Amino acid sequence: MNIVIIGASGYSGAELAKLVATHPHFQLVGCYVSAGSADLHKPLSALYPEHKGIVDLPLQGMDENAIANIAAQADAVCLCTDHKVSVELAPQFLAHGLKVFDLSGGFRLADAHLYEEFYGFAHQHPELLAQAVYGLAEWHSEALKSAQLVAVAGCYPTASLNALKPLQQAGLLAGDQQVIINAVSGVTGAGRKAAIGTHFCEVSLAPYGLFNHRHTPEIEQSLQHPVLFTPHLGNFKRGILATIYATLNAGVTLDDVSSAYQVLADEPLIRLLGANQVASIKGIENQPYVDIGWHVKGQQLIVSAAIDNLLKGASGQALQCMNLNAGLAINTGLV
Amino acid sequence: MNIVIIGASGYSGAELAKLVATHPHFQLVGCYVSAGSADLHKPLSALYPEHKGIVDLPLQGMDENAIANIAAQADAVCLCTDHKVSVELAPQFLAHGLKVFDLSGGFRLADAHLYEEFYGFAHQHPELLAQAVYGLAEWHSEALKSAQLVAVAGCYPTASLNALKPLQQAGLLAGDQQVIINAVSGVTGAGRKAAIGTHFCEVSLAPYGLFNHRHTPEIEQSLQHPVLFTPHLGNFKRGILATIYATLNAGVTLDDVSSAYQVLADEPLIRLLGANQVASIKGIENQPYVDIGWHVKGQQLIVSAAIDNLLKGASGQALQCMNLNAGLAINTGLV
Amino acid sequence: MNIVIIGASGYSGAELAKLVATHPHFQLVGCYVSAGSADLHKPLSALYPEHKGIVDLPLQGMDENAIANIAAQADAVCLCTDHKVSVELAPQFLAHGLKVFDLSGGFRLADAHLYEEFYGFAHQHPELLAQAVYGLAEWHSEALKSAQLVAVAGCYPTASLNALKPLQQAGLLAGDQQVIINAVSGVTGAGRKAAIGTHFCEVSLAPYGLFNHRHTPEIEQSLQHPVLFTPHLGNFKRGILATIYATLNAGVTLDDVSSAYQVLADEPLIRLLGANQVASIKGIENQPYVDIGWHVKGQQLIVSAAIDNLLKGASGQALQCMNLNAGLAINTGLV
Amino acid sequence: MNIVIIGASGYSGAELAKLVATHPHFQLVGCYVSAGSADLHKPLSALYPEHKGIVDLPLQGMDENAIANIAAQADAVCLCTDHKVSVELAPQFLAHGLKVFDLSGGFRLADAHLYEEFYGFAHQHPELLAQAVYGLAEWHSEALKSAQLVAVAGCYPTASLNALKPLQQAGLLAGDQQVIINAVSGVTGAGRKAAIGTHFCEVSLAPYGLFNHRHTPEIEQSLQHPVLFTPHLGNFKRGILATIYATLNAGVTLDDVSSAYQVLADEPLIRLLGANQVASIKGIENQPYVDIGWHVKGQQLIVSAAIDNLLKGASGQALQCMNLNAGLAINTGLV
Repeated sequence: MNIVIIGASGYSGAELAKLVATHPHFQLVGCYVSAGSADLHKPLSALYPEHKGIVDLPLQGMDENAIANIAAQADAVCLCTDHKVSVELAPQFLAHGLKVFDLSGGFRLADAHLYEEFYGFAHQHPELLAQAVYGLAEWHSEALKSAQLVAVAGCYPTASLNALKPLQQAGLLAGDQQVIINAVSGVTGAGRKAAIGTHFCEVSLAPYGLFNHRHTPEIEQSLQHPVLFTPHLGNFKRGILATIYATLNAGVTLDDVSSAYQVLADEPLIRLLGANQVASIKGIENQPYVDIGWHVKGQQLIVSAAIDNLLKGASGQALQCMNLNAGLAINTGLV
Repeated sequence: MNIVIIGASGYSGAELAKLVATHPHFQLVGCYVSAGSADLHKPLSALYPEHKGIVDLPLQGMDENAIANIAAQADAVCLCTDHKVSVELAPQFLAHGLKVFDLSGGFRLADAHLYEEFYGFAHQHPELLAQAVYGLAEWHSEALKSAQLVAVAGCYPTASLNALKPLQQAGLLAGDQQVIINAVSGVTGAGRKAAIGTHFCEVSLAPYGLFNHRHTPEIEQSLQHPVLFTPHLGNFKRGILATIYATLNAGVTLDDVSSAYQVLADEPLIRLLGANQVASIKGIENQPYVDIGWHVKGQQLIVSAAIDNLLKGASGQALQCMNLNAGLAINTGLV
Repeated sequence: MNIVIIGASGYSGAELAKLVATHPHFQLVGCYVSAGSADLHKPLSALYPEHKGIVDLPLQGMDENAIANIAAQADAVCLCTDHKVSVELAPQFLAHGLKVFDLSGGFRLADAHLYEEFYGFAHQHPELLAQAVYGLAEWHSEALKSAQLVAVAGCYPTASLNALKPLQQAGLLAGDQQVIINAVSGVTGAGRKAAIGTHFCEVSLAPYGLFNHRHTPEIEQSLQHPVLFTPHLGNFKRGILATIYATLNAGVTLDDVSSAYQVLADEPLIRLLGANQVASIKGIENQPYVDIGWHVKGQQLIVSAAIDNLLKGASGQALQCMNLNAGLAINTGLV
Repeated sequence: MNIVIIGASGYSGAELAKLVATHPHFQLVGCYVSAGSADLHKPLSALYPEHKGIVDLPLQGMDENAIANIAAQADAVCLCTDHKVSVELAPQFLAHGLKVFDLSGGFRLADAHLYEEFYGFAHQHPELLAQAVYGLAEWHSEALKSAQLVAVAGCYPTASLNALKPLQQAGLLAGDQQVIINAVSGVTGAGRKAAIGTHFCEVSLAPYGLFNHRHTPEIEQSLQHPVLFTPHLGNFKRGILATIYATLNAGVTLDDVSSAYQVLADEPLIRLLGANQVASIKGIENQPYVDIGWHVKGQQLIVSAAIDNLLKGASGQALQCMNLNAGLAINTGLV
């Protein structure tokens, strides 16, 4: 499978470029950035010294000929672009018969109207929302095998949903109580664009996006349970830690919770830490796993879940989807 | 007022030593450590290069003559010692007529039985628990003026209680819903003792003390409302950020919340950031303030509160108590 | 003395604003930024949450009336501006009879021609270079008392020169051997402007400015000895550590070196750590001191010197110069 | 090849355990710690959550039967032990016919007397020093193919020697001038043992081991040129950056230097960044490469070289040696 990455200069694009370039069965045939990028024509490794000798492809511009050129050489494109750009580009590549793996939020929500509220733009291709397969790899593996358009799951949802869906599916969550997800992300999650908010001396630890973060409807759509999701930016580079507070139905025990998680026991990229264990950023940075631990006291449940936001979220998740789509094992090229 | 600090080699002890040494009205007359300490006789600045020229007093040992010697030269002692040690030492100093400011948890809980559950030892001086004044300075200023024994509030409770007591006193919190406090502390909060858990390469971000942290009963005792308190250790040196989730009574508005906080408006060491604002670690590291911001949506309230765990918690809070006890302004020597 | 700060939104400007605002004898009467700044009219504390309640002055614009307005209310201006801007502004304020403390490099070099080589612009006011007093406070205290225009020393030179001038003045340095200064700065030294180089995820530890950093001629001019100066950017916020390698004249001993440093023994903001001691970033972050330690083996000397780049370099150094100029003790408002 | 790792609980042991466990041709058959270790019988992943699912082997104790047991199942042992322990263990394993890869300094120096001066103990097996092959993999590949005992190169020497040997072999370094190596290591280099010096809140940036670090004779022995080596501990987890100052012979040009480095051009784990480029910690953390850049001005040369101290130094270097010894490509299992 020949792959092109669009938006390769950002953190998720560059991470994915490395994953594809070192993958045993995929070929990275092109890296693209916007036509006006200051990084145009530079090798990717000029931006990422750690990639030198691994991904030295030049960054090509998305000019008027780009789509035709890409269609001529690639079987699939990965869109590591802004939401609006993804919505514009995806149908063009689909029309050329390419598979599209979109790492943005452009096709994640089934209800087009939510885009105005949470993403700030009117969705121009609502007809594709029904077609898009939600790329939460462990949970949609069948649909991903034949998907043409994959809406790769967001990073916070990847941590949150793997932690909560087993409980929801087992009917353990008290239906009338929202789940509180308190999550902290490393700074790669905020993107590589120079901005005062990601300046080394400005980052510390603080919440943001209170009550209105776009990952809230994404989580609720997949979980089918109301959540209060509060993200924070933390002073580390990679990783997400979600500390999740939920109310269990009366009578549910710690063993019931542990049993529910067994639905994930055979997943190679899920690590069930077990009852009375906690996840940590240390455990997952530069790792492709979701780590999950849980504690119960009475009806109160606390789950801690951690992922590397790039290597299990975003880029790693995209690669899992691509693996499934190509008929490979879900963790090929990851472990 | 002549002050002696016992347990001066730890983070809170050393911070307090600096605060007292540079205070306009207090004199630091002695720094003590346990008689068997490896740091015995060293100047404090040998352990803390940043204190060189500021606090160069030698670390004296708590040998058999120490209490009499201290009683002869000091008006007050600050106990920056382990809980059990504090419980042993406090009555001896009180018997000599000294004021005792205890930074441990040894005298914070009114119910002696809770010590077995949360601190792991049977309290040997339950008769002093009623006498001890809880050193949450802004809330007990009258009692602190005449206190002989002060149980300086814990660091997490300092952040949590200043954020929640205004709401509780105004009757805004839904009585049947526990408040969830998700808090992250810098590593100075874990103490200076060499341990694998505080090794530079082991610290990341992870929860600990789930369902059983000793600050839970301390917060509930003062707040008179049930809380679920979950602390985390974060990869920074100083500071605590508490993200607090509470349910408001039906009909309570954002303005009601803002009004309730006005009870703290004139406190010089409380900074009300206001509605729709968030606190951050950056805002308070190396600062003696509590920063508080709040958001409301329907009946859901989120409060973010941040303190420097040493300079507003622990040592700064102790100095506030000492100021009040000495008839000085609460922020003397702090700003 | 009424003070105005121009360029108050940057790290050195904001630090100086805090120092002046809390100074016992100075008044901060205005904070200015460029007329087109995105931060115009914001209170300084909107940019720096840590300054809330300490410096809440609004950021005024340097529009056409600004200089006259400033001249009407201030006795002195501090220029925390780019080199070229400082060179333009300084003569205008001098013409109005104001004292000028320039934190840029605009007036540090006596030889105007060096500006083209090291700063990339032709100096428009070479006549002021002879008039400007070099603001390395401990070494030019007499001239600073009556200076109208002060070229506050750079941060790297502050660390390097305090470490080397005692040895040079005592004639201990081998004349034919350049001194090697290997220095590492925290990221505040790179300024607050959003840039990919200061993005949280891009900073690690790397050298820059090899063979051509503008602090090289500044150090050599004051030291009167050739140096090879190599700066590095490190992954911390504040501080500079200089590790200095020099060859001593034959026969010079460790005691000779220690004796030479006694010239600084009474300076309140210099801490001589002594022979066989090392300076560290920990020792000086958020402190107004230069820490200096030294080791000798044969003719080889290693000196380690550390400062907080903002609080002893840049802003702290500027305040020292202002103190001397106002007839105050050099450390007023700093310790 | 069946491999046992002794001292598997430390940073280099655990890193090597992961490398061996995921190696395509090696099997990890046992992980050992000292018989009295507090970690005895724990799975390695209990100490290293990031290794869960990758290396879950239990930590066995080095009791009286351990050597016989290991000899019965392993072809080679890796000693990630203290220098003295390595010197004791190596001959016992050699006597059983096992290959020994020692990551300590126990067999690196040819001159046994240097052990007293630099390591503080009298070497008990000086006869093995001549037999040991120095495990600087790129430079001793032939000897490593048939080595029975490999003294894996130190981390600082790995960075320094790859940067300097090409120049020394080409005769470019001025013979009468020592080379100055200013190096900074991440905290994993200091080991995992709990100690105040590696406490999260104590680490900053400071030099140590001035004039007497044990890597000085190791570098000089291999380089055959005098060096002044000054290590620093920095506030990051992994990586070494060496900034190297050397005097070139008269007439040597930048092109001569660039040509000399071509001797390493085909090495898969060396990345020649080229003239006027700099190495950084970012470029090599979690990477198995040495990055090298160089600048020349007149006779002055500055080389910057960076490695991950565990993944190119220590454990990665050991794996390279094992690969060569097993007849595999030098980078098998590393990229």
